[in-house]
Amino acid sequence: MSFIDLNSDVGESFGNWTMGDDEAIFRSVSSANVACGFHAGDPSTLARTCRDAVASGVTIGAHVGYRDLSGFGRRFLDCSPTELADDVLYQLGGLDALARTAGGTIRYVKPHGALYNAIFSHEPHARAVVDAVRAFGGDLPLLLLPGSVALTMAEAAGLRGVSEAFADRAYNPDGTLVSRREAGAVLHDPEQVTANMVRLATEGKIVARDGSVIATDAESICVHGDTAGAVEMAAAVRAGLVGAGVEIKSFV
Amino acid sequence: MSFIDLNSDVGESFGNWTMGDDEAIFRSVSSANVACGFHAGDPSTLARTCRDAVASGVTIGAHVGYRDLSGFGRRFLDCSPTELADDVLYQLGGLDALARTAGGTIRYVKPHGALYNAIFSHEPHARAVVDAVRAFGGDLPLLLLPGSVALTMAEAAGLRGVSEAFADRAYNPDGTLVSRREAGAVLHDPEQVTANMVRLATEGKIVARDGSVIATDAESICVHGDTAGAVEMAAAVRAGLVGAGVEIKSFV
Amino acid sequence: MSFIDLNSDVGESFGNWTMGDDEAIFRSVSSANVACGFHAGDPSTLARTCRDAVASGVTIGAHVGYRDLSGFGRRFLDCSPTELADDVLYQLGGLDALARTAGGTIRYVKPHGALYNAIFSHEPHARAVVDAVRAFGGDLPLLLLPGSVALTMAEAAGLRGVSEAFADRAYNPDGTLVSRREAGAVLHDPEQVTANMVRLATEGKIVARDGSVIATDAESICVHGDTAGAVEMAAAVRAGLVGAGVEIKSFV
Amino acid sequence: MSFIDLNSDVGESFGNWTMGDDEAIFRSVSSANVACGFHAGDPSTLARTCRDAVASGVTIGAHVGYRDLSGFGRRFLDCSPTELADDVLYQLGGLDALARTAGGTIRYVKPHGALYNAIFSHEPHARAVVDAVRAFGGDLPLLLLPGSVALTMAEAAGLRGVSEAFADRAYNPDGTLVSRREAGAVLHDPEQVTANMVRLATEGKIVARDGSVIATDAESICVHGDTAGAVEMAAAVRAGLVGAGVEIKSFV
Repeated sequence: MSFIDLNSDVGESFGNWTMGDDEAIFRSVSSANVACGFHAGDPSTLARTCRDAVASGVTIGAHVGYRDLSGFGRRFLDCSPTELADDVLYQLGGLDALARTAGGTIRYVKPHGALYNAIFSHEPHARAVVDAVRAFGGDLPLLLLPGSVALTMAEAAGLRGVSEAFADRAYNPDGTLVSRREAGAVLHDPEQVTANMVRLATEGKIVARDGSVIATDAESICVHGDTAGAVEMAAAVRAGLVGAGVEIKSFV
Repeated sequence: MSFIDLNSDVGESFGNWTMGDDEAIFRSVSSANVACGFHAGDPSTLARTCRDAVASGVTIGAHVGYRDLSGFGRRFLDCSPTELADDVLYQLGGLDALARTAGGTIRYVKPHGALYNAIFSHEPHARAVVDAVRAFGGDLPLLLLPGSVALTMAEAAGLRGVSEAFADRAYNPDGTLVSRREAGAVLHDPEQVTANMVRLATEGKIVARDGSVIATDAESICVHGDTAGAVEMAAAVRAGLVGAGVEIKSFV
Repeated sequence: MSFIDLNSDVGESFGNWTMGDDEAIFRSVSSANVACGFHAGDPSTLARTCRDAVASGVTIGAHVGYRDLSGFGRRFLDCSPTELADDVLYQLGGLDALARTAGGTIRYVKPHGALYNAIFSHEPHARAVVDAVRAFGGDLPLLLLPGSVALTMAEAAGLRGVSEAFADRAYNPDGTLVSRREAGAVLHDPEQVTANMVRLATEGKIVARDGSVIATDAESICVHGDTAGAVEMAAAVRAGLVGAGVEIKSFV
Repeated sequence: MSFIDLNSDVGESFGNWTMGDDEAIFRSVSSANVACGFHAGDPSTLARTCRDAVASGVTIGAHVGYRDLSGFGRRFLDCSPTELADDVLYQLGGLDALARTAGGTIRYVKPHGALYNAIFSHEPHARAVVDAVRAFGGDLPLLLLPGSVALTMAEAAGLRGVSEAFADRAYNPDGTLVSRREAGAVLHDPEQVTANMVRLATEGKIVARDGSVIATDAESICVHGDTAGAVEMAAAVRAGLVGAGVEIKSFV
């Protein structure tokens, strides 16, 4: 029997501002990338999110980011590797204290936004993230884009690197994502998306937008919960996978 | 043989701004109240401070505060008990991750500034701090002002409450501190201060400003490191205590 | 012919977080309390909001608040009067630069949240707000709760004080608002609310929840835009007033 | 008679943290780059700094920066041009309100730190700064590094661009600064520095580190006030210039 993980970003509300429908997304995913307070997520939001994850049987991951609330962690910040490593450690510790109080614990790390993108190729920042995760202890796996330099570094450092695929994104024949600046980069048809993800889970293959077939070792599928449409798409992907006999379960 | 703890606030630099002479103060104290990022202390400052504490053999305490960088945690903030408890938990976790990486760990908690003052009498905030410390685990002692309602609550919750005295402050006959608004509230004579603290450590007594003698169960003496004079005072107090045969050691 | 002002809070989004349906609310109100960056509102949000206000012919007011993003300015912050006055001046200047670029300018000031409530009775903070508004120049009116000590201070300082009523709140016979902790504090029936506001605009009277009639000099009615129901209520109030022959126009 | 401007960064304290000896630096300079709250400078610091500038007869400039308190504006932040322009406008407005209350006004703009460096070549950020300064009104001059793309853009937009030289930095033969990573990049000898600056003011020439002579149109000299040595260097440069018959006065 096949299985796959579904992950999504949660806990990204902040104070009086709400982001996403976490309650709904917890019904679809097996892994929750919980914000850690630097790009989003005040401590009470994180506490509530961890309690909901535990209650839903969803694995808690730490969604660490650059220190940039006004930019939601989506803007590259040219901090020093030392600053970044210490910022990541602090975020891991802060979230873990709340996760443990909720009866859970951090089980993996997925960098957020601009940091996620930067460490695909930015070696000092990739090194800083890997160093911080190692220093935190527990040998937490890192969830990343296939081909990310941080994935290679994580594995060289004795950590598990886990690749993910994106449910609603079109792929180039070389396995990279079609840029959002190009037409057709984002897929909106639940049937097409679900068929793609079933193929991924059962055959380990992705069909690129030119029809070519790419082998992938992705162990998780990223879905979104920040719009009503995204929540429905996540539910459709889950239902499609389950209907195809694929078990949805955490990669850890 | 008598013994006593000396504690001081450290790790209160932030980014490019420096606060205090932590290096000097580490030579005088046995316990370091390390900022946790909400009133002061960026993660790299906290990491460096924890390494210095470990290298100096000084016990690490968490100096948790209100979320108020621009006010340095010295302004009462009327947050909800839930917000406060979660903010404290997050700070404890963040600091502990950096302390553990430095080879140490948080051994006690001392609230900072306006929070320290508020929980002398503000029951919901006192309760929130005690709840957070209990939730964090490890039964960390709370270092507080004698008479603080938080001290009573901590002990009722099964935590150890530790009272502290202030080296450079005059006392009223009822054991409270002379208000800073009154003349003579702050003591500047190292000999007088040292004599007071030796009496405290060896006899458990404080002489109030009217000459009356107060019994105290203070197990720690708070000294400061934020001015050159304060650093010298801390060194004088330590030297005086050691010269009087008092051992300086952590209360944990 | 009677006339009245309708005001609402806008510009309270922050970075990636959205708050309220400003576009809809601009169709109902004559005055917009625009956030100033300290409790909500990043500069690009403020710029966009000012452009929309100008395009809608809505008067721009400065919705100044305590420096507390994570608490949305809803928590009392015990800052010094000097800090508060300077914080208010900075917010007024920041918003005005964006308003002028949009072709408008700040025409009045309405304190936000905990600051609005505090200066009902907190004299040092009320004084600080009034001082800052005077220092800013232009003799901007202050929009406040009837009975607020800040209203008296504003008028004593030569500024115009403008009282407001709350469309969806029940009143006590003494003219104060029924506390939100009591049942029936918030009114949900658009017909009742509209009838109340027409009476206010045409007769200068409010009917308290015990049926007694209160005279009021309110020149503005506060409506909300933070929920779908609130936006509909605002539209209903406007339609009801217009239908009763009341002109909706700014008080400045 | 020759004349030149001396400028320095001031107002960079934040809350309880002090930066630099502004009081001393005001005795040496003719222009003060006052922080605007985004990289440093809380509103009360800005207010006090503006009052001191006015009392000292020093021209107030706006030292706008990226929104990054923990990095002191020294880290490149990949914000959008719209975000940057609005952030700059907000900072200009905030500072100007405080400057006007102090009896002054913003007379020029000098970007800070990473923003200053970025807009030497980063066209979208340079454009955003120039657009914001134009939108603010008053046709404020921009103080920049010679060769900066922002200087060219400012002049094309009808603003005055003013070049500055750095008193304590060595120059390459092509007029660029010797990188701080190279030995000899920073000059420490007051006599050498003063001789260089007198030559600059009287002959419009800088001697590069290989002895070659570079023509410059710098109208201002940047000195520092963040260390005791820097303050003494600033005083020495001023005394040397005055002794050589050079008048120290603002470029505006």
